[in-house]
Amino acid sequence: MGIKGIRTALKVDLDKPAQEQQGLHNRWHPDIPACGKIANNEVVKIECLDWTGGQIKNNDSADDVKNVDLTQIHYLSGPFDIETAEPGDVLLVEIQDVQPFQEQPWGFTGIFDRHNGGGFLDELYPKAAKAIWDFEGIFCSSRHIPHVRFAGLIHPGILGCAPSAEVLAEWNRREGELIAANTVAERIVAQPPNPQNSHAGSSPEDIKARVAKEGARTIPGRPEHGGNCDIKNLSRGSKVYLPVHVPGAKFSVGDLHFSQGDGEISFCGAIEMAGVITLKFTVIKNGMAKLNMKSPIFHAGPVEPQFGPGRYLTFEGFSVDETGKQHYLDATVAYRQTCLRVIEYLRRYGYSDYQIYLLLSCAPVQGHIAGNCGHSQRVHDIGCSDGYL
Amino acid sequence: MGIKGIRTALKVDLDKPAQEQQGLHNRWHPDIPACGKIANNEVVKIECLDWTGGQIKNNDSADDVKNVDLTQIHYLSGPFDIETAEPGDVLLVEIQDVQPFQEQPWGFTGIFDRHNGGGFLDELYPKAAKAIWDFEGIFCSSRHIPHVRFAGLIHPGILGCAPSAEVLAEWNRREGELIAANTVAERIVAQPPNPQNSHAGSSPEDIKARVAKEGARTIPGRPEHGGNCDIKNLSRGSKVYLPVHVPGAKFSVGDLHFSQGDGEISFCGAIEMAGVITLKFTVIKNGMAKLNMKSPIFHAGPVEPQFGPGRYLTFEGFSVDETGKQHYLDATVAYRQTCLRVIEYLRRYGYSDYQIYLLLSCAPVQGHIAGNCGHSQRVHDIGCSDGYL
Amino acid sequence: MGIKGIRTALKVDLDKPAQEQQGLHNRWHPDIPACGKIANNEVVKIECLDWTGGQIKNNDSADDVKNVDLTQIHYLSGPFDIETAEPGDVLLVEIQDVQPFQEQPWGFTGIFDRHNGGGFLDELYPKAAKAIWDFEGIFCSSRHIPHVRFAGLIHPGILGCAPSAEVLAEWNRREGELIAANTVAERIVAQPPNPQNSHAGSSPEDIKARVAKEGARTIPGRPEHGGNCDIKNLSRGSKVYLPVHVPGAKFSVGDLHFSQGDGEISFCGAIEMAGVITLKFTVIKNGMAKLNMKSPIFHAGPVEPQFGPGRYLTFEGFSVDETGKQHYLDATVAYRQTCLRVIEYLRRYGYSDYQIYLLLSCAPVQGHIAGNCGHSQRVHDIGCSDGYL
Amino acid sequence: MGIKGIRTALKVDLDKPAQEQQGLHNRWHPDIPACGKIANNEVVKIECLDWTGGQIKNNDSADDVKNVDLTQIHYLSGPFDIETAEPGDVLLVEIQDVQPFQEQPWGFTGIFDRHNGGGFLDELYPKAAKAIWDFEGIFCSSRHIPHVRFAGLIHPGILGCAPSAEVLAEWNRREGELIAANTVAERIVAQPPNPQNSHAGSSPEDIKARVAKEGARTIPGRPEHGGNCDIKNLSRGSKVYLPVHVPGAKFSVGDLHFSQGDGEISFCGAIEMAGVITLKFTVIKNGMAKLNMKSPIFHAGPVEPQFGPGRYLTFEGFSVDETGKQHYLDATVAYRQTCLRVIEYLRRYGYSDYQIYLLLSCAPVQGHIAGNCGHSQRVHDIGCSDGYL
Repeated sequence: MGIKGIRTALKVDLDKPAQEQQGLHNRWHPDIPACGKIANNEVVKIECLDWTGGQIKNNDSADDVKNVDLTQIHYLSGPFDIETAEPGDVLLVEIQDVQPFQEQPWGFTGIFDRHNGGGFLDELYPKAAKAIWDFEGIFCSSRHIPHVRFAGLIHPGILGCAPSAEVLAEWNRREGELIAANTVAERIVAQPPNPQNSHAGSSPEDIKARVAKEGARTIPGRPEHGGNCDIKNLSRGSKVYLPVHVPGAKFSVGDLHFSQGDGEISFCGAIEMAGVITLKFTVIKNGMAKLNMKSPIFHAGPVEPQFGPGRYLTFEGFSVDETGKQHYLDATVAYRQTCLRVIEYLRRYGYSDYQIYLLLSCAPVQGHIAGNCGHSQRVHDIGCSDGYL
Repeated sequence: MGIKGIRTALKVDLDKPAQEQQGLHNRWHPDIPACGKIANNEVVKIECLDWTGGQIKNNDSADDVKNVDLTQIHYLSGPFDIETAEPGDVLLVEIQDVQPFQEQPWGFTGIFDRHNGGGFLDELYPKAAKAIWDFEGIFCSSRHIPHVRFAGLIHPGILGCAPSAEVLAEWNRREGELIAANTVAERIVAQPPNPQNSHAGSSPEDIKARVAKEGARTIPGRPEHGGNCDIKNLSRGSKVYLPVHVPGAKFSVGDLHFSQGDGEISFCGAIEMAGVITLKFTVIKNGMAKLNMKSPIFHAGPVEPQFGPGRYLTFEGFSVDETGKQHYLDATVAYRQTCLRVIEYLRRYGYSDYQIYLLLSCAPVQGHIAGNCGHSQRVHDIGCSDGYL
Repeated sequence: MGIKGIRTALKVDLDKPAQEQQGLHNRWHPDIPACGKIANNEVVKIECLDWTGGQIKNNDSADDVKNVDLTQIHYLSGPFDIETAEPGDVLLVEIQDVQPFQEQPWGFTGIFDRHNGGGFLDELYPKAAKAIWDFEGIFCSSRHIPHVRFAGLIHPGILGCAPSAEVLAEWNRREGELIAANTVAERIVAQPPNPQNSHAGSSPEDIKARVAKEGARTIPGRPEHGGNCDIKNLSRGSKVYLPVHVPGAKFSVGDLHFSQGDGEISFCGAIEMAGVITLKFTVIKNGMAKLNMKSPIFHAGPVEPQFGPGRYLTFEGFSVDETGKQHYLDATVAYRQTCLRVIEYLRRYGYSDYQIYLLLSCAPVQGHIAGNCGHSQRVHDIGCSDGYL
Repeated sequence: MGIKGIRTALKVDLDKPAQEQQGLHNRWHPDIPACGKIANNEVVKIECLDWTGGQIKNNDSADDVKNVDLTQIHYLSGPFDIETAEPGDVLLVEIQDVQPFQEQPWGFTGIFDRHNGGGFLDELYPKAAKAIWDFEGIFCSSRHIPHVRFAGLIHPGILGCAPSAEVLAEWNRREGELIAANTVAERIVAQPPNPQNSHAGSSPEDIKARVAKEGARTIPGRPEHGGNCDIKNLSRGSKVYLPVHVPGAKFSVGDLHFSQGDGEISFCGAIEMAGVITLKFTVIKNGMAKLNMKSPIFHAGPVEPQFGPGRYLTFEGFSVDETGKQHYLDATVAYRQTCLRVIEYLRRYGYSDYQIYLLLSCAPVQGHIAGNCGHSQRVHDIGCSDGYL
């Protein structure tokens, strides 16, 4: 007679080290054992740590961000076996709700140190920084960026199914080639498998060793399964269509964000939080062929904070970098220039460049590709506590 | 006693070659004489040819697109002297209306031949193609892409003030360097000044020669003045803040679009049209310093077609190209992959790849930068005559 | 080969008395001869006077509003014969564009004198008042209500097809009954046919006399054909499905509004203007039965000024009037109370009650029925020239 | 150091009779003792029963609706003493979240029997009916109205502060007058105080007796304090400014709705549910004078399901009732006619009139006052499971 209460498929412990919790893992690998079963068409709650596994504290020092241990990230909840899912199917995941833990109603945005993580503007802003955000319902504010208050668009940063052995091998091949080809000493172009702090969930020792050796890192996102997708609009009511590569799908989720700007430019740039996500799972048999799908497809829900087009200011960047060098159709250069234009503009409100950099990362600003593949970033108006900036 | 009727500051002749019309020009140069004066705070109508100057015809062959003469483009209306404007000022331009000519209610979208213009996906789609769009009020439809009908978001693709001699020299320097450094024989990385078909408005012979030799091409957009900005939301009610580099500002406008998608990926990708734009001009004295502005700032109007977030499908691309090669944080590669995912998806509706490529260029689809500078393109639902695709 | 230029089906003369123009009329009657023919599927432009036929002038005195001759209103353009339309069909009218005359870019909002027209709040605000609005593209502002500037949502206030003789007789019957039953001496509950200033277009003398005697006034709106519908969202891109009662439909249109609030409370409450409307006509054979339609159906276009839900303040009225008397489920009483609450609130910005009453009539405020048929009016934020009120 | 976990200020017991729970009450009276204290600026969770106190069950018979005991309704949670609040202050209530109970994820919409409750269309639809809605995240669907699924806009139907003795006396006076003046035997025009099933919370016997004798019923809403306001947009992120009439404000809340249409026409017309509301309270000293406020003011949050104006169909009603009788400016008559037009239209999708009546009551349809105080109801498109109706 109608829907029953919702089962919690995984609980996490906010006080226990992430490495000791068997329902978490921080590498992608087909052999990590499932931490639970979910029925086709079932709705469940899944608890998640923040992506660093609790390394960042609610205080006023950025030292924890500066010294963050990135070999550990991202801690994901899962993998879950979805009944009836087989390779070639599509797993439809409906995001019914995302909430911070009631007893921990805060999150953080960080700028990594250039020598430990870095970010999109790290040549100009090499130092670590941090803002703690307090949540009040759908709104958030930070004592580190006074007078700013806005409604978040809460969502998961990472969700996906495990790669098959073949898919994993392809990832390691192509990222290895990129690493091998890199000639800029201090640039980390990709993260190879790294045994240090590898967490393989409840794996027995032999699989633990294999995951440590072969397991794909959670950065970057990858087209075969989505993973680290960081789409700011993937909030309540959204649907995600995910390719299935292994029996049972082995679905994982994590990296919950209270809010994020397009581009999440400071890398630790969303408002990162621990919390609970409520998901419904439906298996679409043979879906990859039916939908002619090589990568996930996303369908945002009908609910979002609405401001109207007239409440945005638009800044434009071009393929000319800050040294005056012209590039050819380079959207990344253009995007970086746009970010700098915004920072210059927002200084007038008395914020430091680091504060603005944090804000651009986590407030729901838009970043659009404009014509001819130059780039324009539309910057969202950001409400402050006394009205609007 | 209130506002008077609106003066037409420039009339164009749809039946006369663009090269013979003195109110048009197709190069940026400080010495092109003004074709008229506009008072501070004045509202005027300015007529514009389509960007090719009428080379593309309302018929069913793409031969005119294939053989388009790109040395001629873009024909702009102007330059206009804005009274009281001086270097360092900002020219505030309010877009009050944009309309096609009543007697020519149609436009075109083209895909250039790979060897004459090219486009974002020209390696995969090397041939020329064309769609003619008929306008019905705010809606448009095309006999070349049956069953599709959508509301345009009408706007100018190009507007800006003339460069100073110093700014022009800098453009020629940095683009020259890029051209000199290019090693891919068939790739055109920038357009150097080109005397062929240079049109310097009403210039006397000596200035004509100088413009032909030094005048900057209208591609690409440039941060110092905007120019070719191609922002799809710059429609009725929008404001543009433009840096002034020469006395009188020497403002020009053209390249009117009935509609355009973010990215305008096929290059001739908007719905290109001739028409009339109504603009109000206000000079902000010493505005560049006051606004701490290095590049134009745009403020979209409050009016746009609204569909809500739930009417978009989102596809995601990553920095892995179609050969399986991994790139480092390359938004351009990621964007191209996203476009391919959309094309694959929309095939299900019976359209050819070229039809979809045209549609992605001209319908008001969105293209967003997602987290970590990968890329996700949000694709707008496109209404068709029988409901929705 | 595509759409041709648009024919103007009726021109009006702004300098000639409305009574002398044969394409106008101010009564609904089946026998008024058509002033022109329009083909099925044709797009035409139709020029319209303002609803008073030019009685209100662009000056700073409300005497013209006070002394307005209401026996003349509303002057409508038409009627037009739509080819192939027959009784029982539905006439689909697509509103492609509405524009003020270029040479007359202004409009007016009036409050009628309580003894000549009146309005929703005339017991409290019995005197005539007027605001002249200047148009700047999609925006308007008034020297009579300083610092307010907003985007209009331009639309026609009246459109409909002629009644059949039977429909007309029914109108006269039921409105006559209401008039006969009225016991409040000074209250005008309905307007009976009135020969004074009746304008029957190009009718010969005998029909002129019949129209003068029987013709229905243009107030109120009537369910059988729409007529005076005053729906603020009926702007560019909207579609209206109109019942056809006579051969050829005999379609008329007028009462153009630059903007209007829900309720148009001051009666002459929109921003009234003369201008040009562009319409497409399509006959749906046997449409009334197919759509099971007793009254017109409206489908607004996708374009409107967007502010988002957070930019509205909501005031609520209840069925308790200003004397403290309780009424039973009376939405009209509740609505009046809501209007008074808004007036009280907006006084804080220094406006007089009459200025606010004008503003509530013409700015695109919303008026919603809340639960249990009380009433809540959502009041739109109204941008002023220095930002927002 | 930031926000702490949120305190639950009142727990309810879903299995215990509402009459036995001391934190509930169903009459408005200044003497009902507070059930708890809330600090100024505190955020708390408050649990609520559904408005009937659990009389309606999750089954397929409408007998419980038919026989509902209306002397019991509405059960409200409270009253709460808000520290520092005094008469003349304004209590700012921010709605941070509203959720159904996790173990009871369903709600109901009812049509009352004409002889027990009735509703807006009870002359035409006199019988009781019921739909049970299952919640899936922000969406809901009903086995009683197949194929319909939409996103709710969750909100409280009732919130307000206790009346002072003077305010209460005024309510009883004016509603008593209305009852006395009523001449239609079967019409209930207002609910006088009624000792039957009166619930006065934790009152001692003498106050219980007084509340039973004098306490105002929870129907209708009243301008002095809001109360039964039923505003469908009052969802997460909204703010309500409430007049304070007694020391401590004595705030109560209840009647939670998963969704409601403007007008809530069937009276039990929202999707009624039990659940938890999270509220923040802030006292604005002397706020009634500062804000010149006679009635509550509401400020909706920025978040709502967005469909865009083009996804609504608009139907229009006029002051002519279904017998052909003309009324004078009667928005209630016009609104009823609009509802009938919608019912006629939606029959085409195979739904019964009662199903549509339920749907119009609970789906987020809009009801607007159109010009000249006639009425137009904008009907929202309602997504069904296979796309859109």
